[in-house]
Amino acid sequence: MDSYTLPYTFSQRAQKLTSSTIREILKVTERPEVISFAGGLPAPGGFPVEEINAAFDRVLQQNGRSALQYGPTEGYTPLRQWVADDFRKRGVDISLDEVLIVSGSQQALDMLGKLFIDPGSKVLVEAPSYLGALQSFSLFEPVYAPVPTDEGGLIPERITDTLAAGARFLYALPNFQNPTGVSLSTARRQALVERCAALQLPIVEDDPYGELRYAGEPLPGLLQLGRKAGATVVRLGTFSKVLAPGLRLGYIVAPRPIIAKLVQIKQATDLHTATVSQMAVYETIKGGFLEQHLPAVRDLYKRQCGYMLEALQEHFPDTCSYTRPEGGMFIWVTLPEHIDGSRLLERAIERNVAFVPGAPFYAGSPKTNTLRLSFVTVSEDRIRKGVQILGELIRAS
Amino acid sequence: MDSYTLPYTFSQRAQKLTSSTIREILKVTERPEVISFAGGLPAPGGFPVEEINAAFDRVLQQNGRSALQYGPTEGYTPLRQWVADDFRKRGVDISLDEVLIVSGSQQALDMLGKLFIDPGSKVLVEAPSYLGALQSFSLFEPVYAPVPTDEGGLIPERITDTLAAGARFLYALPNFQNPTGVSLSTARRQALVERCAALQLPIVEDDPYGELRYAGEPLPGLLQLGRKAGATVVRLGTFSKVLAPGLRLGYIVAPRPIIAKLVQIKQATDLHTATVSQMAVYETIKGGFLEQHLPAVRDLYKRQCGYMLEALQEHFPDTCSYTRPEGGMFIWVTLPEHIDGSRLLERAIERNVAFVPGAPFYAGSPKTNTLRLSFVTVSEDRIRKGVQILGELIRAS
Repeated sequence: MDSYTLPYTFSQRAQKLTSSTIREILKVTERPEVISFAGGLPAPGGFPVEEINAAFDRVLQQNGRSALQYGPTEGYTPLRQWVADDFRKRGVDISLDEVLIVSGSQQALDMLGKLFIDPGSKVLVEAPSYLGALQSFSLFEPVYAPVPTDEGGLIPERITDTLAAGARFLYALPNFQNPTGVSLSTARRQALVERCAALQLPIVEDDPYGELRYAGEPLPGLLQLGRKAGATVVRLGTFSKVLAPGLRLGYIVAPRPIIAKLVQIKQATDLHTATVSQMAVYETIKGGFLEQHLPAVRDLYKRQCGYMLEALQEHFPDTCSYTRPEGGMFIWVTLPEHIDGSRLLERAIERNVAFVPGAPFYAGSPKTNTLRLSFVTVSEDRIRKGVQILGELIRAS
Repeated sequence: MDSYTLPYTFSQRAQKLTSSTIREILKVTERPEVISFAGGLPAPGGFPVEEINAAFDRVLQQNGRSALQYGPTEGYTPLRQWVADDFRKRGVDISLDEVLIVSGSQQALDMLGKLFIDPGSKVLVEAPSYLGALQSFSLFEPVYAPVPTDEGGLIPERITDTLAAGARFLYALPNFQNPTGVSLSTARRQALVERCAALQLPIVEDDPYGELRYAGEPLPGLLQLGRKAGATVVRLGTFSKVLAPGLRLGYIVAPRPIIAKLVQIKQATDLHTATVSQMAVYETIKGGFLEQHLPAVRDLYKRQCGYMLEALQEHFPDTCSYTRPEGGMFIWVTLPEHIDGSRLLERAIERNVAFVPGAPFYAGSPKTNTLRLSFVTVSEDRIRKGVQILGELIRAS
């Protein structure tokens, strides 16, 4: 599409947009015969449909006109207070005016791009990192500086003075990272916040999956450790994985001056998040519902993860390695160096199996012999069959 | 706040953000003793609470898991089809892939800023124009070129070659404009689309109030006229005023190449609009509900508008002029030249009456002797009392 032949001119940022690889893949995987490990969808069996329905009903019965009216940009106060209280229970002293409700974590990424990124601003990201964050930030035309990682996730010592110089923030997913499933150890978390405090480098801590831990012990968040170490931490949370993503509800916790600016940005972006959804989510969770609900979700995800790890053990050659997540939705596979994940995908799709190749998750030079597998929405027998097919294709490569 | 003393650096655009005048005023007007003509809220008495509640219930009962799952970025297909069909009924041939669902019209403005505006890009706006649009676009750092207006709204002949040269688009609200309440005549609409077609200047037609016409005859939209004249028109619509704003649901109708880019932008912005809300709105309106519901809303708004016009006639001196809207929510008052709307507001607030002074609605040099009055959420006796107080203050100025 040549903008000179069109009766309109797109912005530079819009001209640079290309169609997302994942998006194109997901179109193929909509065919029911395809065994898709490509999705990032949570398992709908874990959605508390009845409770959410009852909550919408109570809210609309009791407070219908308020629920359907415009609301404050900051969000519905009881829900913000719930978020603050939830952090306090975990030992982080958060006040109401450090909480902003957003229309899902993806919107938080967009707003943080607006807040921090000028064209050419440096942003530090894990290598690999969450593709959706790269897409959001890229609209504001940053220059990415990838932080080296190993099997334990990002390496704090590799955030050198040179790497961090002039950077606007570091974006990190410490729990069951998307795409690798890897969690940072407590020692690395501590080293990371101390390093960032010393460098005056703000950390954006994205934690969509923290509540989905099904093995090992919970680790302290970067927000908690960062406050003690004097680091600036902006924490992103979401109800997408603990309740349901179709509600599009998340939150940002940050120091007051950052929240104040984000409120102005949110107002210009979409005025506020849907009142009725905020009230219904608060109505669902206010009595401690998540504590009853989450164990079943964790069990489901643990079982699904187990099926896939067993299948990988059985069907993948020893020349492949893969992560063993303690939570979340993803396993990351490293293939022998000569196998390109994108080419493997082409062959896999011919046999009705799909996944996401690893390359798009890298902001810098990609490791092309990688891929991401999601295990949460696929039945046990299809997991086994799909992994078997992938194993055959890898052996034949 | 000095960014040099902070452990983080905001973007240029974020540093330029200042707190919205309307926002600060609205804080004052939350006190119950204040008679506020400042709001832009629709009347909650017009919200079909029971019907929306029943729709949420049906959707969650019958399709709960789909309603709570991630959905396509383009929006819920039946709702997009409803929008396309609704235009077809009015004689505009719109297809499904020319419709994108958004989280309220405000989000459409943000996405259009991303699509069209580079720093320094020229954007044509009415003088005055909708403040929320100016705030959204401003995040992308355009240069505004105000189009002169008179009592009939924007003057197409004043869109000269020089004014339009290099402009990315013209933003216009042809029906019951916010803030003036003025509608463009059919002749001006026709002249406008012909002028923009000749200039290859895209038109963003924002039409939140079109369905709230309570006097006069419906006029053809710029989209309809523009298609015939060969102009590029991006049309914004919303369910905020015909159903309820707390749902945060709107739509964009535009040529396919523009929708395709906007889908990529929407994906990076918030993935998609809440599935459950889209399904519930479709469930509410699919059987022709709006046709039954809107007459009562229009009657309510007409009555409210009448109260205010009567009160203005009775209490305002002849040195003031004001618009007589045929729909929508706002009346625009022009005071004698020596009275500044902002200073009048200070005195009015001392007497517990609030409104929005006109100056913030101007992207260029403001007419400071203006103000916007909203009549929809205030009771008849409070309208009369509030207008009486304003009249006294104007006479004493």
